[in-house]
Amino acid sequence: MQHNCALFGIFGHDDAVSLSHLGLYALQHRGQESAGIVSTSGERLERQVGLGLVNQVFNKRKLAAIRGTRAIGHCRYSTSGSCTDANAQPLLFSFAGGQVALAHNGNLINASLLRRKYEEVGHIFQSTSDTEVIIHLLAKPAHQQKKFPLNHVLNHLQGAYCLLLLFSDRMIAVRDPLGFRPLCLGHMDNGAVVVASETKAFDMIGATYDRDVEPGEIVTISDAGVESRRFGGDMGGRGAACIFEQIYFADPSSLVFGENVHLVRAKMGQQLAIESPAEGDLVVPIPTCATCAATGYAKQIGIPYGRAFTTSHYAGRSFIMPTQSDRDIAVRMKLNVIKEAVKGQRLIVVEDSVVRGTTTRAKIGALRKAGAKEIHLRVASPPIRHPCYFGIDFPTQNELIANTRTVDEIRDFLEVDSLQYISHEGMLSCVQMPPEKYCTACFSGNYPMSVDEPVEKFAMEHGQMQMFT
Amino acid sequence: MQHNCALFGIFGHDDAVSLSHLGLYALQHRGQESAGIVSTSGERLERQVGLGLVNQVFNKRKLAAIRGTRAIGHCRYSTSGSCTDANAQPLLFSFAGGQVALAHNGNLINASLLRRKYEEVGHIFQSTSDTEVIIHLLAKPAHQQKKFPLNHVLNHLQGAYCLLLLFSDRMIAVRDPLGFRPLCLGHMDNGAVVVASETKAFDMIGATYDRDVEPGEIVTISDAGVESRRFGGDMGGRGAACIFEQIYFADPSSLVFGENVHLVRAKMGQQLAIESPAEGDLVVPIPTCATCAATGYAKQIGIPYGRAFTTSHYAGRSFIMPTQSDRDIAVRMKLNVIKEAVKGQRLIVVEDSVVRGTTTRAKIGALRKAGAKEIHLRVASPPIRHPCYFGIDFPTQNELIANTRTVDEIRDFLEVDSLQYISHEGMLSCVQMPPEKYCTACFSGNYPMSVDEPVEKFAMEHGQMQMFT
Amino acid sequence: MQHNCALFGIFGHDDAVSLSHLGLYALQHRGQESAGIVSTSGERLERQVGLGLVNQVFNKRKLAAIRGTRAIGHCRYSTSGSCTDANAQPLLFSFAGGQVALAHNGNLINASLLRRKYEEVGHIFQSTSDTEVIIHLLAKPAHQQKKFPLNHVLNHLQGAYCLLLLFSDRMIAVRDPLGFRPLCLGHMDNGAVVVASETKAFDMIGATYDRDVEPGEIVTISDAGVESRRFGGDMGGRGAACIFEQIYFADPSSLVFGENVHLVRAKMGQQLAIESPAEGDLVVPIPTCATCAATGYAKQIGIPYGRAFTTSHYAGRSFIMPTQSDRDIAVRMKLNVIKEAVKGQRLIVVEDSVVRGTTTRAKIGALRKAGAKEIHLRVASPPIRHPCYFGIDFPTQNELIANTRTVDEIRDFLEVDSLQYISHEGMLSCVQMPPEKYCTACFSGNYPMSVDEPVEKFAMEHGQMQMFT
Amino acid sequence: MQHNCALFGIFGHDDAVSLSHLGLYALQHRGQESAGIVSTSGERLERQVGLGLVNQVFNKRKLAAIRGTRAIGHCRYSTSGSCTDANAQPLLFSFAGGQVALAHNGNLINASLLRRKYEEVGHIFQSTSDTEVIIHLLAKPAHQQKKFPLNHVLNHLQGAYCLLLLFSDRMIAVRDPLGFRPLCLGHMDNGAVVVASETKAFDMIGATYDRDVEPGEIVTISDAGVESRRFGGDMGGRGAACIFEQIYFADPSSLVFGENVHLVRAKMGQQLAIESPAEGDLVVPIPTCATCAATGYAKQIGIPYGRAFTTSHYAGRSFIMPTQSDRDIAVRMKLNVIKEAVKGQRLIVVEDSVVRGTTTRAKIGALRKAGAKEIHLRVASPPIRHPCYFGIDFPTQNELIANTRTVDEIRDFLEVDSLQYISHEGMLSCVQMPPEKYCTACFSGNYPMSVDEPVEKFAMEHGQMQMFT
Repeated sequence: MQHNCALFGIFGHDDAVSLSHLGLYALQHRGQESAGIVSTSGERLERQVGLGLVNQVFNKRKLAAIRGTRAIGHCRYSTSGSCTDANAQPLLFSFAGGQVALAHNGNLINASLLRRKYEEVGHIFQSTSDTEVIIHLLAKPAHQQKKFPLNHVLNHLQGAYCLLLLFSDRMIAVRDPLGFRPLCLGHMDNGAVVVASETKAFDMIGATYDRDVEPGEIVTISDAGVESRRFGGDMGGRGAACIFEQIYFADPSSLVFGENVHLVRAKMGQQLAIESPAEGDLVVPIPTCATCAATGYAKQIGIPYGRAFTTSHYAGRSFIMPTQSDRDIAVRMKLNVIKEAVKGQRLIVVEDSVVRGTTTRAKIGALRKAGAKEIHLRVASPPIRHPCYFGIDFPTQNELIANTRTVDEIRDFLEVDSLQYISHEGMLSCVQMPPEKYCTACFSGNYPMSVDEPVEKFAMEHGQMQMFT
Repeated sequence: MQHNCALFGIFGHDDAVSLSHLGLYALQHRGQESAGIVSTSGERLERQVGLGLVNQVFNKRKLAAIRGTRAIGHCRYSTSGSCTDANAQPLLFSFAGGQVALAHNGNLINASLLRRKYEEVGHIFQSTSDTEVIIHLLAKPAHQQKKFPLNHVLNHLQGAYCLLLLFSDRMIAVRDPLGFRPLCLGHMDNGAVVVASETKAFDMIGATYDRDVEPGEIVTISDAGVESRRFGGDMGGRGAACIFEQIYFADPSSLVFGENVHLVRAKMGQQLAIESPAEGDLVVPIPTCATCAATGYAKQIGIPYGRAFTTSHYAGRSFIMPTQSDRDIAVRMKLNVIKEAVKGQRLIVVEDSVVRGTTTRAKIGALRKAGAKEIHLRVASPPIRHPCYFGIDFPTQNELIANTRTVDEIRDFLEVDSLQYISHEGMLSCVQMPPEKYCTACFSGNYPMSVDEPVEKFAMEHGQMQMFT
Repeated sequence: MQHNCALFGIFGHDDAVSLSHLGLYALQHRGQESAGIVSTSGERLERQVGLGLVNQVFNKRKLAAIRGTRAIGHCRYSTSGSCTDANAQPLLFSFAGGQVALAHNGNLINASLLRRKYEEVGHIFQSTSDTEVIIHLLAKPAHQQKKFPLNHVLNHLQGAYCLLLLFSDRMIAVRDPLGFRPLCLGHMDNGAVVVASETKAFDMIGATYDRDVEPGEIVTISDAGVESRRFGGDMGGRGAACIFEQIYFADPSSLVFGENVHLVRAKMGQQLAIESPAEGDLVVPIPTCATCAATGYAKQIGIPYGRAFTTSHYAGRSFIMPTQSDRDIAVRMKLNVIKEAVKGQRLIVVEDSVVRGTTTRAKIGALRKAGAKEIHLRVASPPIRHPCYFGIDFPTQNELIANTRTVDEIRDFLEVDSLQYISHEGMLSCVQMPPEKYCTACFSGNYPMSVDEPVEKFAMEHGQMQMFT
Repeated sequence: MQHNCALFGIFGHDDAVSLSHLGLYALQHRGQESAGIVSTSGERLERQVGLGLVNQVFNKRKLAAIRGTRAIGHCRYSTSGSCTDANAQPLLFSFAGGQVALAHNGNLINASLLRRKYEEVGHIFQSTSDTEVIIHLLAKPAHQQKKFPLNHVLNHLQGAYCLLLLFSDRMIAVRDPLGFRPLCLGHMDNGAVVVASETKAFDMIGATYDRDVEPGEIVTISDAGVESRRFGGDMGGRGAACIFEQIYFADPSSLVFGENVHLVRAKMGQQLAIESPAEGDLVVPIPTCATCAATGYAKQIGIPYGRAFTTSHYAGRSFIMPTQSDRDIAVRMKLNVIKEAVKGQRLIVVEDSVVRGTTTRAKIGALRKAGAKEIHLRVASPPIRHPCYFGIDFPTQNELIANTRTVDEIRDFLEVDSLQYISHEGMLSCVQMPPEKYCTACFSGNYPMSVDEPVEKFAMEHGQMQMFT
């Protein structure tokens, strides 16, 4: 299973590789496990990937080893498979049409089935990443003979996917028909076209945001300019923009799904204060993700915004470490309570979301140990009760604290004096698109596509698998 | 010249090396250029040092290469000399008394003179660090024959110094008579004694803070327990605790000079609001150092605390990069404006201090470019007009923006609508010790000791240099 | 194009990985560009590869990362493609039959055609190595349904190939029907079965040589024991054992094609002395490859064997550096003339082979400059006039000095007083199999299979390509 | 204790650093534990050192980090102390006279005493290398005030030493009054002056050998040219050129003590054959050190020279690995018996020297196991019975096989059919200087200076230690 990641692409700039490096750096919060860039000057594609942070993977030597005016890059958040170089993206292949590199953000729910079908007809796979199946589909002669092979490939994919493909002569950006994950288009002063998961990457390199890649859109960038075409048919006005991008995943400075993440979070904080006020001396965020929501809460309720922790700038976000033991180390090495600021205070603690509850509990415990008099926890998202099949790396369902516990039981587990979550409707009132355009399945269990037996169903419905029989 | 650094020491713990590693990690904000640990089991001293962050210098192999139940560690902020391994501390020497390791935080204003004098009588130096001279003094037979050689050594030193010395059988912590830099004593549950520049290191390893090492105190830790003795004579009630530790350098969660840094900074923000209120829609800090002061300002004035920037967690603090070019990169890679949060707003921007003004100007410019309607800058420390000779790495005096410009000229340079600094008295009203206990020379020019011709004067005054003639 | 390489495999030993490491180290002379091992405990296959020498690629961490009781390894000599990790062998794939790893020594002359055909029907390739096509053939459902899929795969391959395949439950060793390259079978005391390109690897790990894998034999090693089957049909008594393995490539201590390499070379030196005696004071080898032949020459002719050069043990064999510039450096850094041993002497210099002539010329020049009175060059192989399509990395044909020059012209080019090569018949009289069992094409131009338009011809002759039409 | 090492220096060449790199590479056989270069353009001295082989220590980045037209370099063989960067030479210091770098080959038998005396008067040491004491002597004001401070320094040193010193404005080469270790002077075509332990380094960089630095000579190279002066007084015609340099340590292509090493060894082989002929089929060397002697032996006796082993070019000489376990690995990874060449043969095995006997026994055992019919061992040096105090890293005396065993007992231990050593007189008849010019103490026990209580004695004799009282 492929999880949420970062994509960056640029076409038509002499510094394509170093700008990709900076762009990936700006999106580092979306993935810390591996990073990679494939570039080309219009001929051969060259690839450099590795495990670790962008700045660890790319030293001067590695950046100098790849050249070109076109490049795509990728940061990987995590994989359920083993963490090896072989799975680091972008993947690079050659086929009858030449070379192609691929970077993927999202999760294909029918990729394993497709892979199995391809294996049955004699195809071989190098990576353990299911993403590889997209290139097998693309290389299929029946697809290659079509006017738009990619349209036919995409009809086979089910799930969440933003894709960047790089050929020697063109870069292609794709967003799935329901638009689960964000993907933005922009340009540089010299006319270079840029693509990124979030606009923060544009800010870093001085690019201008133009618009989102639309759900169900294929954007082809070449020397001939930017072309757009549609695929995937009519979704009946439905969409599946991941609300968790707004709540937790994206950077507050980014535009995501057309609106600023910080403002959405601050609004959620305000809405939470309206729905669930609390009495106290200080409103403090669990740093640093809940800062936005906490400013909104504090502003709405009129209680001073304060600070209860300091953070170390030298280690990564706890949420995106791969194993439990790493997560424990990360918590300990990231936050330190300001005891004197907390002692004897009635704290209103704002959190953006509670997943397992274990790290929240640890932080609350630290506040309590430092002498907080009262702790009222307010969470700017509803209880998470359902798994995500579309790219967010939640733990298994029975590790989700809200799956097996009532709010009162969670309050007791977290050892807070009171606990309130924002309502589902309240949350949706803070974003600009209508509710049917969002996926809120992790809260509601209403999945935008069937995931019960996702692959078989898909195969039967669309009848596209006869190619394999 | 030696700049502000971090010290950590532990005596009597099986995990002395790994705890030192964690302790230094917790103090990483005090120095990012080099890191090192010297340890011993009571016999031979072993040393591992390197350039870079604590987590870069110490991998598993390096940590496994040194063992022991006693260890001292050091992070270096910067040096005016070349940045080489040879200067990384702790330094390790052998002399007639055996082996000794030394770590130093501060700056000795007469070290160059002492070094020159020693060179004149035939001594040789390996590092370009003046710190080495302390061991030459210590090894002097005339000093070694005294009951307390170190007391005699320290009488020769002029300037700011916290020292940690490790011998095979004891660890010694020293703080200069005026107490420029902080140094704290604590203990672990197993009875191990710990020493650190800031209490944040104690929090990281689960140690308990006991007290500060006093100005003019030598604390000797051995199997016989903890012994204290005094040196340096009567200072007449004066002290020189560096107020800039409270304003900028130390971590907000630490106790420094006996009080919590965050609370001091928040009080300074409140005092600044009392002295210099402003009208606006949002109070926003320049992240992340000014967060504490901004919460105090917002609370006092009753205007919502907001957020104007996001930060990247993957690069270091701009202030502590060694060269101008690195500082520029660091700014660009660290902060991103949240344009939508700023557009059309009247911002009250809180900054902890303005040194050169160039990065502040860059950040203000970014806010302006994002569409801020008004920008009122409030600085929670007075104008910095004078160099520091005691460990803070300010630029040369005419690079200090307040040295050559009036407040109005600075306002124009920074392109803000209004600018106010906290008053000198206001600042001192926010800390608990009486004013004569602090060094505020960077603001006032009143140095706690003569620095005009510091070395010659010292030599004549004390008459201690005849040893060399 | 794939060049001469080393293979090593072991089945049924707890130290399979570290024994593979040692085995590859012993075969390092066959390939210095990359090294790799794939191992398994009977379940998942794990892979570690890298660029460089065996001892550079495999540190403790890398060796510890792969485990198992079965392993195959590979050292690569050179590739015509780019030198990247992606091409390092063994390659590892998954397909409908599970995981499979492949290591290849030799060169498939129809691999490019096969690859193109597969690409045309929609297959994708990850490496630029043509070896990958073997797994595409293997994964073909029509092949998988056969009782012995591999037999059908091998019928498609034209050229020189020794293969090692590792599945979770078995290891398979294959040698092509003409037996171009050597491949040996042996066993350990514990019953483990070992396979290696040369018996030197068995000596290193204490294994016993049993026999060669026969041309046209597939040996399958599993828990059920060792099975042998044949493929490829009747060759009419012909073979194509590469005589250049005996002359230059293999280690003198190895058995190759059933006889000891040193003894073959010494016999060639003797035969050369019989055919082309010379007068002189000393018989000296061009170190170190010609040592064997020189001892034979000296013994036969009764002139003292001497030494004219010393060698540096810290750099690799010049012949196997990838680029011309590296080859130049290697020459300069590898040999030093013993001037005093050479001055005024009449030297009979023995060389094993002369390819380009440039390095021989450099060495002869050094002898001349050191004052040699006469230099008579004797070469223990015939003039090399034709390219090798089966794994020896000769330069292009017109770089071969004997391709465009007569022996007299070569003598003048090399600036020697006399020059004689061994005769073709003389050479063949020194090896034990009958002449029709050897490939001597580089000397004679008589290729054991058509290589004019090798791929098209093959496709038509055998009619096996209709699968692709 | 400092052991035999390599020195290289160059003054007056734009490529001083890279030529030093090449020069050290050529002398790699003299030391594999660490390597270092200090260079200067006439101002600041810059240093790069590290553990490992020359090619491991110096990558492009490290070579680029030091510049200059003058450089000295050093390879260290081994130290009895811990193997750390801190001891890697050249050492670099600053003192009243500026900066100075020092590289030392040999062993000072009174260095520990001198160090202790200096420590007693308050000097401190950074390295555990006794070499550092030379700079303490040099920095002494009483010495600095003399016209030739170095002459006075050298009068304090007892033992074997070749020194290279680099100051910003001059390079100084020194050889001790008895001339234990070799040191050669030469020049480049551009006039640059070069110094090296052996002439092989000159061959590598294209320099011309001029003459040896004489025993008791100080050669100063500066922009003013080359100056020579003497020190140490009259030795009464005695010398102490280390005969073991000729037998084992130096490269056969080098001039050492004015004559070629290979020719000396070949003569020793001839002499050995005259003294101790044997009957057999083949004369084979223990590779690769005994090759020279074996050619002499074979020539003299008229039995064919043969080959019994192949060697791997990818690991170092067994003799210079620091620990027993490394030595064992090295043997196994370096040599492989050519079984077919040995089986049924009567071998006359020539060895250059037998120290412990363990590796010789292992090699003989391998020959026996391979089926040798008879093995007659002939050793081209006398039995080693005494320790070396002057730079050769022999094991402790009772590990020397000839110290506790008769020749017959050694024969039995080594399991050879016969064993003969060259005679002491025979050995000395093969070198050109008269016997009194050589140190043969390891064979004879006649040390060229008293080593019973070397340091105290020295101190009393010369009365130079009152400086410390």
